[in-house]
Amino acid sequence: MFNFDFYNPTKIFFGKNRLDVIDKQVPANAIVLITYGGGSAKRNGLIDKVKANLGKRKVYEFGGIEPNPHYETLIKAAEIVNKKNITFMLAVGGGSVIDGTKFISLASHCKGDSRDLLKYGFRLITSEMAGEVVPFGVVLTLPATGSEMNNGAVISDGHGKFPVMSDLAFPEFSILDPTLTFTLPKIQVANGVVDAFVHTGEQYITYPADAKVQDRMAEGILQTLIEIGPISVAEPENYDARANHVWSATMALNGIIAVGVPQDWATHMIGHELTALLGIDHGQTLAIVYPALLEVRREQKRAKLLQYAERVWNITKGTEDEKIDMAIRKTREFFESLGVKTHLSQYGVTADKIPVVIEQLRDHGMTALSETHDITLDVSRKILEKAM
Amino acid sequence: MFNFDFYNPTKIFFGKNRLDVIDKQVPANAIVLITYGGGSAKRNGLIDKVKANLGKRKVYEFGGIEPNPHYETLIKAAEIVNKKNITFMLAVGGGSVIDGTKFISLASHCKGDSRDLLKYGFRLITSEMAGEVVPFGVVLTLPATGSEMNNGAVISDGHGKFPVMSDLAFPEFSILDPTLTFTLPKIQVANGVVDAFVHTGEQYITYPADAKVQDRMAEGILQTLIEIGPISVAEPENYDARANHVWSATMALNGIIAVGVPQDWATHMIGHELTALLGIDHGQTLAIVYPALLEVRREQKRAKLLQYAERVWNITKGTEDEKIDMAIRKTREFFESLGVKTHLSQYGVTADKIPVVIEQLRDHGMTALSETHDITLDVSRKILEKAM
Repeated sequence: MFNFDFYNPTKIFFGKNRLDVIDKQVPANAIVLITYGGGSAKRNGLIDKVKANLGKRKVYEFGGIEPNPHYETLIKAAEIVNKKNITFMLAVGGGSVIDGTKFISLASHCKGDSRDLLKYGFRLITSEMAGEVVPFGVVLTLPATGSEMNNGAVISDGHGKFPVMSDLAFPEFSILDPTLTFTLPKIQVANGVVDAFVHTGEQYITYPADAKVQDRMAEGILQTLIEIGPISVAEPENYDARANHVWSATMALNGIIAVGVPQDWATHMIGHELTALLGIDHGQTLAIVYPALLEVRREQKRAKLLQYAERVWNITKGTEDEKIDMAIRKTREFFESLGVKTHLSQYGVTADKIPVVIEQLRDHGMTALSETHDITLDVSRKILEKAM
Repeated sequence: MFNFDFYNPTKIFFGKNRLDVIDKQVPANAIVLITYGGGSAKRNGLIDKVKANLGKRKVYEFGGIEPNPHYETLIKAAEIVNKKNITFMLAVGGGSVIDGTKFISLASHCKGDSRDLLKYGFRLITSEMAGEVVPFGVVLTLPATGSEMNNGAVISDGHGKFPVMSDLAFPEFSILDPTLTFTLPKIQVANGVVDAFVHTGEQYITYPADAKVQDRMAEGILQTLIEIGPISVAEPENYDARANHVWSATMALNGIIAVGVPQDWATHMIGHELTALLGIDHGQTLAIVYPALLEVRREQKRAKLLQYAERVWNITKGTEDEKIDMAIRKTREFFESLGVKTHLSQYGVTADKIPVVIEQLRDHGMTALSETHDITLDVSRKILEKAM
């Protein structure tokens, strides 16, 4: 097991009818900015319920945070924060709204050019760069990204997607009420299952580090997603399935399974370019890239792929390579069973787009990806070819 | 899955050579009280190393916190806190030292009679009762209780052991360096494995609540302890085994596997009386009580016992009762394989002591234990008879 640091101070309020905690968790004298996305939370009355729980506090709203939230959009919210002296934010939405709100929090009182906050990659942004951040809470409406209980965000600028990490960016609290996700379109639910599954894989199918509890926990999340993912998609109001889906997605990326192990975020990095260039949903890009990456990287990941085959998929017969083939095939079939396609060609993307993606990876410095920093642009090209 | 709240702000610094974080984590102007136990940390030089990392800060020491730390002892430390204006504490030790330090933290500026803090049971003590608490960090030397990353303590007073819980009692940080545990006596290592195992069981072998990730994670901790427990005991300087032991013990009681599920702390409550009355080590009492409790409670716990048999012990053949018998037998054999006895008679305790234990349970209000509050004194008597 590697040496590690772990810290996660976000308070979680999980279950039915939890909006009443807002009144206790948001300071009584706060001036609040509610942030949200395309407007479904507004139309279905959730924003009004949140406002009702804020009582007499002064409340402003900022809607229209798009999927893959954009720097230009968020900077407008930061201006409102400054103009209205906002002291607390409430993000009502999924990963994009939460990620966007994290960035607004960091950017509002940023001392230099807030665009520079996109340049730190996986290094933690400190208060020396961000100044005083605006604390915020979350009302989650989409189980997928884990952003509700971690310190990271992904922000779009131009044709790039940039990770932004800071221990100042943990939500103060997150309300995870599975019933608030019942009205989601099926494809978003399915994408969410894929997102959580791939997050878990990226922290687990690497090289062995003898981190036994972390491995078992990652396997437990994968097994749970395999068990309840299809039900969560097919039966939107099945509370038990959705509750397990929500908590799996949060646990997949709150840092607990990441401690002391190598991590391979290449699938996300390649997937980000596919979203930015081709407009394919984030979860869909992962379903395309991940099985292809596992195939291309089978030698580097052999030991963990065998463990994955046996412990997660119960594959005990055949040669090593047959087991690995079967595990990758089952992964692909699992994504397809949720209604998420796993080939670029299924989105009408032709092979001539691959060089364009490779150029973008080069432009963004993504030339040494993976847990061993040896996914060069050549390897990324092979992965994309395999993903066609 | 039940509704739940989760919160755990303790920072973890895990691995070899982590004492250098002390200088960054303890405020530069702190007046520090180092708390420790019987003196092994003093004799082996660990206290000196901790002090070296505190640099020029003013440092006091309070040694002699005994196993099952006693109110009378701790109150002396609280007097020092007040007399010397201590602003930060560093607990160097295992569960007893950490639990004791939590109590010192809560009691030092307590507004009323600090003994009243023992009366809250599992209710959270707030700042209205405790006043301003003294923040503290931990340097862990014994992997067992999980106290290094939770909000609970168990404090002895007279012949009673009392739970003390408070969100003010989370350590600010905990340093978990497995090498600091290499010099422990084997029996303490073995007791630590049992403690972590039973903590996990008490949050898992209850009744089904469809909390799939929590179940899988609990099973993962149990499987890990089964795998590395005997190695951790037999090979004190096997870093990998000990590292997995340390992290399993922390994860077993940091709240992560407890969310949304019923919990049955009857084994701990009955075990506490055995420690208080008969002087049997805490971990040893759990190894005595737990298999007996599982046998007596097999009907109430049938579904989860079957799940435990299949998923943790790989028992797939036989009738339901044969599977359960086998799982309980394997649990008992596992404890014995660590060198921890599982029968009261092996400690020279005779059956005439049982009524005395029952009287103590009655005196302490432990008359409706378990996840369903139906372990009456009669049931506790049956458990103790089975544990003879």
